[in-house]
Amino acid sequence: MFSELEGTLHQETIDSVLLRDNPLGDPHVRPLWVYTPPGYAESSDRYPTVYVIQGYSGQVEMWGNRQAFRQPFVVTADQVFAHGRAPGCILVYVDAWTAYGGSQFVDSPGTGKYHSYLCDEVVPHVDARYRTIAAAGSRAISGKSSGGFGAMITPMLRPDLFGALATHAGDALYEYCYLNEFAKSARALREYDHDIMKWWTDFNSRVSLTKEHDMSLTLLLGCTAAFSADPDGTPRLPFDPRSGVLIPELWDRWLAWDPIRMIDRYADALRGLRAVWIDAGTRDEWFLDLGAEAFKDGLLRIGVPQERISYELFPAAHGGIDYRYPLAVEWLAHRLDRSS
Amino acid sequence: MFSELEGTLHQETIDSVLLRDNPLGDPHVRPLWVYTPPGYAESSDRYPTVYVIQGYSGQVEMWGNRQAFRQPFVVTADQVFAHGRAPGCILVYVDAWTAYGGSQFVDSPGTGKYHSYLCDEVVPHVDARYRTIAAAGSRAISGKSSGGFGAMITPMLRPDLFGALATHAGDALYEYCYLNEFAKSARALREYDHDIMKWWTDFNSRVSLTKEHDMSLTLLLGCTAAFSADPDGTPRLPFDPRSGVLIPELWDRWLAWDPIRMIDRYADALRGLRAVWIDAGTRDEWFLDLGAEAFKDGLLRIGVPQERISYELFPAAHGGIDYRYPLAVEWLAHRLDRSS
Amino acid sequence: MFSELEGTLHQETIDSVLLRDNPLGDPHVRPLWVYTPPGYAESSDRYPTVYVIQGYSGQVEMWGNRQAFRQPFVVTADQVFAHGRAPGCILVYVDAWTAYGGSQFVDSPGTGKYHSYLCDEVVPHVDARYRTIAAAGSRAISGKSSGGFGAMITPMLRPDLFGALATHAGDALYEYCYLNEFAKSARALREYDHDIMKWWTDFNSRVSLTKEHDMSLTLLLGCTAAFSADPDGTPRLPFDPRSGVLIPELWDRWLAWDPIRMIDRYADALRGLRAVWIDAGTRDEWFLDLGAEAFKDGLLRIGVPQERISYELFPAAHGGIDYRYPLAVEWLAHRLDRSS
Amino acid sequence: MFSELEGTLHQETIDSVLLRDNPLGDPHVRPLWVYTPPGYAESSDRYPTVYVIQGYSGQVEMWGNRQAFRQPFVVTADQVFAHGRAPGCILVYVDAWTAYGGSQFVDSPGTGKYHSYLCDEVVPHVDARYRTIAAAGSRAISGKSSGGFGAMITPMLRPDLFGALATHAGDALYEYCYLNEFAKSARALREYDHDIMKWWTDFNSRVSLTKEHDMSLTLLLGCTAAFSADPDGTPRLPFDPRSGVLIPELWDRWLAWDPIRMIDRYADALRGLRAVWIDAGTRDEWFLDLGAEAFKDGLLRIGVPQERISYELFPAAHGGIDYRYPLAVEWLAHRLDRSS
Repeated sequence: MFSELEGTLHQETIDSVLLRDNPLGDPHVRPLWVYTPPGYAESSDRYPTVYVIQGYSGQVEMWGNRQAFRQPFVVTADQVFAHGRAPGCILVYVDAWTAYGGSQFVDSPGTGKYHSYLCDEVVPHVDARYRTIAAAGSRAISGKSSGGFGAMITPMLRPDLFGALATHAGDALYEYCYLNEFAKSARALREYDHDIMKWWTDFNSRVSLTKEHDMSLTLLLGCTAAFSADPDGTPRLPFDPRSGVLIPELWDRWLAWDPIRMIDRYADALRGLRAVWIDAGTRDEWFLDLGAEAFKDGLLRIGVPQERISYELFPAAHGGIDYRYPLAVEWLAHRLDRSS
Repeated sequence: MFSELEGTLHQETIDSVLLRDNPLGDPHVRPLWVYTPPGYAESSDRYPTVYVIQGYSGQVEMWGNRQAFRQPFVVTADQVFAHGRAPGCILVYVDAWTAYGGSQFVDSPGTGKYHSYLCDEVVPHVDARYRTIAAAGSRAISGKSSGGFGAMITPMLRPDLFGALATHAGDALYEYCYLNEFAKSARALREYDHDIMKWWTDFNSRVSLTKEHDMSLTLLLGCTAAFSADPDGTPRLPFDPRSGVLIPELWDRWLAWDPIRMIDRYADALRGLRAVWIDAGTRDEWFLDLGAEAFKDGLLRIGVPQERISYELFPAAHGGIDYRYPLAVEWLAHRLDRSS
Repeated sequence: MFSELEGTLHQETIDSVLLRDNPLGDPHVRPLWVYTPPGYAESSDRYPTVYVIQGYSGQVEMWGNRQAFRQPFVVTADQVFAHGRAPGCILVYVDAWTAYGGSQFVDSPGTGKYHSYLCDEVVPHVDARYRTIAAAGSRAISGKSSGGFGAMITPMLRPDLFGALATHAGDALYEYCYLNEFAKSARALREYDHDIMKWWTDFNSRVSLTKEHDMSLTLLLGCTAAFSADPDGTPRLPFDPRSGVLIPELWDRWLAWDPIRMIDRYADALRGLRAVWIDAGTRDEWFLDLGAEAFKDGLLRIGVPQERISYELFPAAHGGIDYRYPLAVEWLAHRLDRSS
Repeated sequence: MFSELEGTLHQETIDSVLLRDNPLGDPHVRPLWVYTPPGYAESSDRYPTVYVIQGYSGQVEMWGNRQAFRQPFVVTADQVFAHGRAPGCILVYVDAWTAYGGSQFVDSPGTGKYHSYLCDEVVPHVDARYRTIAAAGSRAISGKSSGGFGAMITPMLRPDLFGALATHAGDALYEYCYLNEFAKSARALREYDHDIMKWWTDFNSRVSLTKEHDMSLTLLLGCTAAFSADPDGTPRLPFDPRSGVLIPELWDRWLAWDPIRMIDRYADALRGLRAVWIDAGTRDEWFLDLGAEAFKDGLLRIGVPQERISYELFPAAHGGIDYRYPLAVEWLAHRLDRSS
């Protein structure tokens, strides 16, 4: 796979200690793809690194999926360097899949310690094995959708590790991206005695994704496990599943993870970023274009200099926007610190 | 018009003092239709009254609109009494149209004193001219959509006047029915420099309702004028029109008008109601089925006896549900106090 | 009703001989609205006439329906003359409703002799009672959707009566406007043992238009009754209701009524027209924009001079285009022969 | 890739003579995946073969794509044999991609000799290298969408090679599956001076699939190249791109490839089939459920015994139905002739 690259894709695994005994019984040995750019093998240079995380339901192997008339991101990212559009970077494709389809890249008793796994295991693992520049100013994180969310929050939580980010249609402004999902899910759960776990049992007992609301409910269950699980791991829906009425103490736990609402709490971290790429499609089904606008506005408000931000809304919906990713990689590659 | 009725429809006007000099320059002389049931003229009985208010963009004359394969509500309501399904009631069709398409039946510096007009002018006007039983227990209010909203809030504010209500897909649970509108409107306003008044100027300068978002923006502007106008009448959008970010002090003014959030404040009034009809379509585009469920739940929570409530979700979207109205009229007619 | 007009709307009835004993038991006494322009009463002039027919499910009384932010066509048409935009015309609003919702303005054993009723009864009736210029060059016919279809075919069949027409999104190019309906209907009929009459029985036994496909099936049944009824009046679907496979001998009967396919057969009649207005919305759900283009192309191909044709596609879907009608009335009013 | 299989997937290439100098300049060396079932290596048995072809835009490598909560068909097909649900078969995954996205598995001057390549090159290639039972009764062909079309027509054309087939939502009943596409495409081409080659030039000059109609126009162009190309390879749209009016001589060439219309011409071939699996989703966006019904009806009409047909409509749209493929493989595996 990917024999056409001018750089090299190293398809490895990482054995996570932090994911052992995770609550969903997901594997603790995870695939990890590390891309080294053209010229890496021939030199002894150290390189900046861009961590690439995926949207909901993403698994690292999906980066190998072929789509008609398009090339996979692994290929288009390689071309950024192979065609000389930007100086070389190491790219790290991280797997944070769970049985529910995703982890939101946070630590939660409902799913596992995916944030810590990323920051405290994957990063050191890569730094130990590849000639990275192991400093925040030389390390970025990038993703789309839930991956865009992860790309926004991880540098807030760990400015010591990440000094740049790219978010494509990242989850933000939760009243717009999630409440509609709650409402639709409340309806969908009418068939399941208003009990999402009954739906989950059903989902697992038949061919998956054959009912209309399967994907929505999967996303809801996974985010619930990530944001409002009980200490014993039980996911607690942040709303009454009959009426949709929000349960403030649980919904507040979700809102505490809204990147827009995190900006003030993490203003110092954000002001320390070298480069922030923000984009989204103008017709995004989850209104993540509004989330993008709000995130950009928030950064400017707290004093992030405009010249560190690339902001663009482009005509598209949520799907099919993978062609944006290499644009961000190229932009980041020019801005990451190369002085090791 | 309506010569086929067994009762009689009196198509009058009312000259409102309260609507004089209303901020939008709308007429203060308003149509008022009063229906008296079969037998009214021949008897000297007094009758309970059901006030009928309309959804957004409704004008009283629209009750005369003909639709294929259906009969107008004026006719189907007449049949309730003509066919002996319920004892006679007087029905009062109230006009609360504004230049923006509606008033939400509240008093506001942005639109006018439509709540007071209804309660302090229309009700006394009708009681003075028709043989009503002029008591709250003999007076109901009924409506759909914005009219359902009006039907929920008016008895809360004026339990001395209204002792029963029917809400069909009434606006409630604002985080579900309005936030989606805000998000779509923020997008629509991109063409108008994020300024709803620029859109309004445009709307009034061309054939109305020829652009995709015209109706949504009309509703938004009207509700803004009703819920969050400045003292001088200027409508203030409760969100940043670029990003959609809510403006808490203005959004809170909207939420103060959410029937779900009003329940506790008006618990005594609600506990005093004789009869509450609540229904909505299971696929309502504004999730007013969830609002219905939440309203019913709230009434039960504060102690409204279950037997006073008729609650039903039926398979439908928001449109085409006029056939539900006579069902509520019939149900109310049996429950209103006839001891004058 | 319509007291605001500067002209006068005469709301009459006509007692049709041809519609007596029509197969669906529909009334033979029909409403007929005749509008005379400002100045009519004060003069002894004769006027050109524009016959106005309705789309599927239309009944003459619906011309009185009120819509928010719009005025009824009866009013906007009056303004054409009242505001001096065109010299006066008499407008005739014809009722051709049937129990199925429409007649397509043709004679059929499945519905009745609506074409003859229009041409041989309504026209003479009007000419006898109003100061019309009773000549084809002074008589136009105009309509939308099914009414646009009627406006296209009636002058083809009766060039002795009609010398001009306006079609707004008129039914044409049947492979695009009808086949999609057949396919959807075949699916809808799965619930009814593939028997449209079982659906019709069900439709009449419950609240109409409460099932998703009610309106589509109504249109299908009505067009079938109009185009492919047996001599005894039984409607014969032009396709196998299980698979949708077309039945050539019945489908050919439909195609014989496709205005596009009628052009060559009625080329002389069409070449005799003084004025042809053709428009449609670019997003028409029945692709009637393509039908409009094909009709215009056909007229040019057979030699209708371009200057007699007004052709326009405008950005809209099928609904809400009533604002186009007065534009056509104005254009026709300038082109109808006023030399009596 | 696919290390988890109990059988073995052989990922080879085939160097086609027939595809050399194909008109679109597509590669003549093609990937070919051949799956041998568990036990193949250990035995000397000969096996029936199922050829698997893809829907429009499919390339063989896409069989390796990972989808959340689902397993690739290569895996689920392996399970059919690994779990003992059916006796072993060889599966052959054929690549017939073109620059336009597909070939419809026919020979055409517009694309190349994909039918002959499949029948005269791939089949002999496989028979020469694997222990197949090289007889029609032991050879089936299976596919979805355009692949279902290929699976229907190939055995009609080459009953000497294929004695069984499975079609999942296969293209059929062209008036329903294609005319809607023509109409939408005519609209989409308004931006391109009604010239599909202008669109194609545009498509190739920018990021593909970023305009709404890109996929529809690709399909249209590819089918046009397959069905109505000039002898020099120029694709000729079967309709006037302005109005959508069909061009009979070209549309007839498409209809000549409609499986429903081919049934009578190829009745002998069809009556010789051992097994025919037909299914489709009841909500298929191209109405291929009706095509399925019509294909089944046609087979019964010409005398194919009912017991040789498996027919099912299942609740689904066109997408996400890959879980149906192994059901057909299992069913075919029981019916293919194993007497070599």
